Amino acid sequence: MITIQDIQAAHQRILPHINHTPVVTSSRLNHWLGHEIHFKVECLQKVGAFKARGGCNAVQVLREQQPNIRQVVANSSGNHGQAVAWAASLFGLPAAVYMPTFASQVKAQAIRDYGAEVVALSTRQAVDQAVADAAQADGVHWIPPFNDWSVIAGQGTAMYEALQQIDQPLDAVFAPCGGGGLISGTLVATRHAQARAQVFAVEPKAGDDAMRSYLSGQIQHLDDAPKTLADGAMTLSVGEKTFAHIQQLDGFFAVEESPMAYWTQWLQHLLKLHVEPTSAMVMDGVCQWLRGRPSKPSQKIMVVLSGGNIDAKTMQKIWQTDHLVQTPRVDLGWP
Amino acid sequence: MITIQDIQAAHQRILPHINHTPVVTSSRLNHWLGHEIHFKVECLQKVGAFKARGGCNAVQVLREQQPNIRQVVANSSGNHGQAVAWAASLFGLPAAVYMPTFASQVKAQAIRDYGAEVVALSTRQAVDQAVADAAQADGVHWIPPFNDWSVIAGQGTAMYEALQQIDQPLDAVFAPCGGGGLISGTLVATRHAQARAQVFAVEPKAGDDAMRSYLSGQIQHLDDAPKTLADGAMTLSVGEKTFAHIQQLDGFFAVEESPMAYWTQWLQHLLKLHVEPTSAMVMDGVCQWLRGRPSKPSQKIMVVLSGGNIDAKTMQKIWQTDHLVQTPRVDLGWP
Repeated sequence: MITIQDIQAAHQRILPHINHTPVVTSSRLNHWLGHEIHFKVECLQKVGAFKARGGCNAVQVLREQQPNIRQVVANSSGNHGQAVAWAASLFGLPAAVYMPTFASQVKAQAIRDYGAEVVALSTRQAVDQAVADAAQADGVHWIPPFNDWSVIAGQGTAMYEALQQIDQPLDAVFAPCGGGGLISGTLVATRHAQARAQVFAVEPKAGDDAMRSYLSGQIQHLDDAPKTLADGAMTLSVGEKTFAHIQQLDGFFAVEESPMAYWTQWLQHLLKLHVEPTSAMVMDGVCQWLRGRPSKPSQKIMVVLSGGNIDAKTMQKIWQTDHLVQTPRVDLGWP
Repeated sequence: MITIQDIQAAHQRILPHINHTPVVTSSRLNHWLGHEIHFKVECLQKVGAFKARGGCNAVQVLREQQPNIRQVVANSSGNHGQAVAWAASLFGLPAAVYMPTFASQVKAQAIRDYGAEVVALSTRQAVDQAVADAAQADGVHWIPPFNDWSVIAGQGTAMYEALQQIDQPLDAVFAPCGGGGLISGTLVATRHAQARAQVFAVEPKAGDDAMRSYLSGQIQHLDDAPKTLADGAMTLSVGEKTFAHIQQLDGFFAVEESPMAYWTQWLQHLLKLHVEPTSAMVMDGVCQWLRGRPSKPSQKIMVVLSGGNIDAKTMQKIWQTDHLVQTPRVDLGWP
């Protein structure tokens, strides 16, 4: 497992390059829920997601440890590819991102804008094989999306920072879980700064491999990418490095698609931020937890809003039904 | 006309109550356009729009000048009603907002959440009559949405602040124009701090009464509320107080509905902010202006992002067509 020292070292490395994102709150939301929710706004991070942190730390660690480094490579159809492309460009390091041809062209364009090469292949298997082959070459190094110590330490800096931005004891901390990099770093940062706070992960019900892994004590795998609005949490399984952390969590919540759209609308509306479903779904996990508790005393909660990269098709799906007619409540029911 | 001293006095009054909103920029957008665009982010203002500034100033001026004040009233189906309700609640002053029954229920709910009474009437004419009748009562004072000196001075504080947040000379400043309160205040603030910068207003083509007023030198009126995504700029005419300022502008641009949706998508995507069409349409005005100029030297521009209050139906319309496939350019053509 990583330690708080790993996160602190990562923070020192990435601080000159990343955005110091705000922690915000909505007085109307707090009033409706009867609890106090603080949001760490990582959709305002470089590349629009916390992934910039892990990518930036990993590229720098590689440069320190591998003096012969010529290129970094990543396989990603999403935010991690952008993060590696951006981080490599900071240090004038060539980068190549391998992605499936069916991935979003907006994301491919963003990766090119950061100066990286995009290698598009027709299947995910072909992508994974190609990046493995590329990383065989001398001086070429692969940066994995989550199952990597320096990536996990980098992601942990989001909560490390958030807990310095708030000067009161928290009852609970929530973050989404895809491959587990963010929630692993969040756990270590929280245990250090706020040992009394519970740490929970949230995952789409349609792809609840991590929750089943957590409950069974063994890594579970999905056969196929789940159909979910939460495209940042579609990974087929967690890794053994992230799972070591995940097993220490205080609980896990799975979220249906309707509440995911509901909370994306409401967080966009209340916070005036372009929050993606992978981030907003966490609020349904928060409500599930609150429903199992007495309504008093009021709980103080920190939520990581992980990112804000949303393609047009997903925006259409999010706003298909008008959820703003129904004011948030802890005990909101779903059909 | 108002003076810079009016704006400075308004700023002193409202400073303890409003949000000091950031000025942001997108390096990717600047790269694509070849110019430098700075955004004053008033969608992160109280009540989600710059209107909080004018409402907060007007309520305080009334309290100073009318010691017998018992209630403030406003007629609005949108952000101004929220602003007056919020500002009145700050000073424990009762407020009533008269609105048509067909107005957004989300906005009516927000007004109630700020503690104001909502009076819903079936037609706009009935609403206007009822607020006029109410304001006849002793101690009841009407706060107009734009044609009012203390409202205009309050709206001017957005640009007054923005020009303190940027330490370089600007070539141009842009803001949307509905009834003209924001653009009037913006003009006075800019002439004071950056006399060399040109000041432009932007309006939906579907309701271009203000542009026709500007060009003809006489206030023009629309017969009916225009059908446009820019619901913050649907006023039937400017007022004589705002028109006195509008006549001093350096130019006016009208925007079609397609580019309005285009720029709303792109600003939400690039800035990760929940920007409303009335704000985002300004970027089409910026591009119209840039198209008429040599591409060098690069221009420095400030844009007021006026608000972020969008109902679900409008979000559906904004995202109906995928505009993210087409990267921004100054000379982007529209069918």
